[in-house]
Amino acid sequence: MTDNKQITAAMLIIGNEVLSGRTQDKNLAFVGNALGEIGIDMKEVRIVPDQQDEIVDAVNALRVKYTYVFTSGGIGPTHDDITADCIARAFGVSLDMHPLATELLEAHYEAQGIEFNAARARMARIPDGASLIDNPVSTAPGFRIGNVYVMAGVPKIMKAMMENILLTLDGGEKLSSVTITAQVPEGSIAEAMEKLQGEHPEVSIGLYPFYGADGAGVSVVARGRDLEKLGEVEAAVKQQFTDMGMDLIERPAPAEFLKG
Amino acid sequence: MTDNKQITAAMLIIGNEVLSGRTQDKNLAFVGNALGEIGIDMKEVRIVPDQQDEIVDAVNALRVKYTYVFTSGGIGPTHDDITADCIARAFGVSLDMHPLATELLEAHYEAQGIEFNAARARMARIPDGASLIDNPVSTAPGFRIGNVYVMAGVPKIMKAMMENILLTLDGGEKLSSVTITAQVPEGSIAEAMEKLQGEHPEVSIGLYPFYGADGAGVSVVARGRDLEKLGEVEAAVKQQFTDMGMDLIERPAPAEFLKG
Repeated sequence: MTDNKQITAAMLIIGNEVLSGRTQDKNLAFVGNALGEIGIDMKEVRIVPDQQDEIVDAVNALRVKYTYVFTSGGIGPTHDDITADCIARAFGVSLDMHPLATELLEAHYEAQGIEFNAARARMARIPDGASLIDNPVSTAPGFRIGNVYVMAGVPKIMKAMMENILLTLDGGEKLSSVTITAQVPEGSIAEAMEKLQGEHPEVSIGLYPFYGADGAGVSVVARGRDLEKLGEVEAAVKQQFTDMGMDLIERPAPAEFLKG
Repeated sequence: MTDNKQITAAMLIIGNEVLSGRTQDKNLAFVGNALGEIGIDMKEVRIVPDQQDEIVDAVNALRVKYTYVFTSGGIGPTHDDITADCIARAFGVSLDMHPLATELLEAHYEAQGIEFNAARARMARIPDGASLIDNPVSTAPGFRIGNVYVMAGVPKIMKAMMENILLTLDGGEKLSSVTITAQVPEGSIAEAMEKLQGEHPEVSIGLYPFYGADGAGVSVVARGRDLEKLGEVEAAVKQQFTDMGMDLIERPAPAEFLKG
């Protein structure tokens, strides 16, 4: 399933609150889906605390391994917002007041009659050589340096930043998928699906069990970039269910699927 | 904020579906909270695809760095459930049919009149030297080897397994926390809180902005193991809000908090 055209991404989620379970991350689902739509595969996620060494090490590990790295969290005005400092350190560049970011933030706070104090000025500190990412929600910009995109943790802001970025990314050949669902326990078709996977290495076949009012069922999700081969796998999976005397059923909403 | 008594944990979430955004992970929130209750700090999370090298490398990186590692996902009956194989490889041990796991699964499927086929027998393959973790939901056990606890990805099953494990873990000195909330933009108290943090290195002070009908507000969360010092910080934060002429407000539900 290797593919020369594969473009990869990793996400780095920064924040003690996500680790402790206090805050449920919502950003990965948005970023993973949005990248999938343009043919970029999310390959790894790390969640690290608000600690400089941990952030720097994770950024440096991920940025050499994947085409793109997206970070969320830690770019606000408070002392525990240290992402910009860490990115500058990871790239070995200095972190200075960015003229445009400063101007935008000054104007933003002035318009609201709020003091543009030293804490708020922290949000204009951008690593040297980075480009700004527009924040239409609360002005304080994100930034891109090299292949690393640094965004806010607040989902509404991160989503707006990501939507600005998406059009600038080099997409891959889009991965297509088909889902075939039946009221069959996954263990009853596992062997047939393993055999099918062996015969079709270009298509990735995943099995996702669910438990509903009618008992155990499974969705078979086949993914691939070659539509003809994907169609062959789809037909074979449907035939398998038919041979077992099982009807295909409508696919439940994604939230109902669970990975065993 | 280092502490000799600190007991640490990492979580490894295994599954293409979580990376792609198709499935929202729910297990971290449960595990992070449950560990926090017994004084164990979740320090890092990695989410990796169903690929052997990625899983093996992540397990080996995490198990030498943290007291405990908890994994979720990839222990079902299908060809893409490869977690047990990867854990055995990471520890350099063989993976054989475990007599008790085999017996439990045989009895489970016999009672339901379902064939105990080769795919289902995969779930009885346990790395040599591992202890089983009871699965009261669907029988197929998890296991512990060294400091690594391997659990299912289905939240209901993972929760049941985790509840079995919790009593066996060495807890740390419990981290206590206080939350002080006011209708003040975080940027207005950021400098005062940075100063307070500098004066109280044993207490970790985090600021969590939220946006409600009444505009921007902030919750200051102070965490520490020394209750006296925590009390000093709590009093200082309350004094700070009082000095600004702001009333304290009730803390919104955790889901309303967002990390900037």
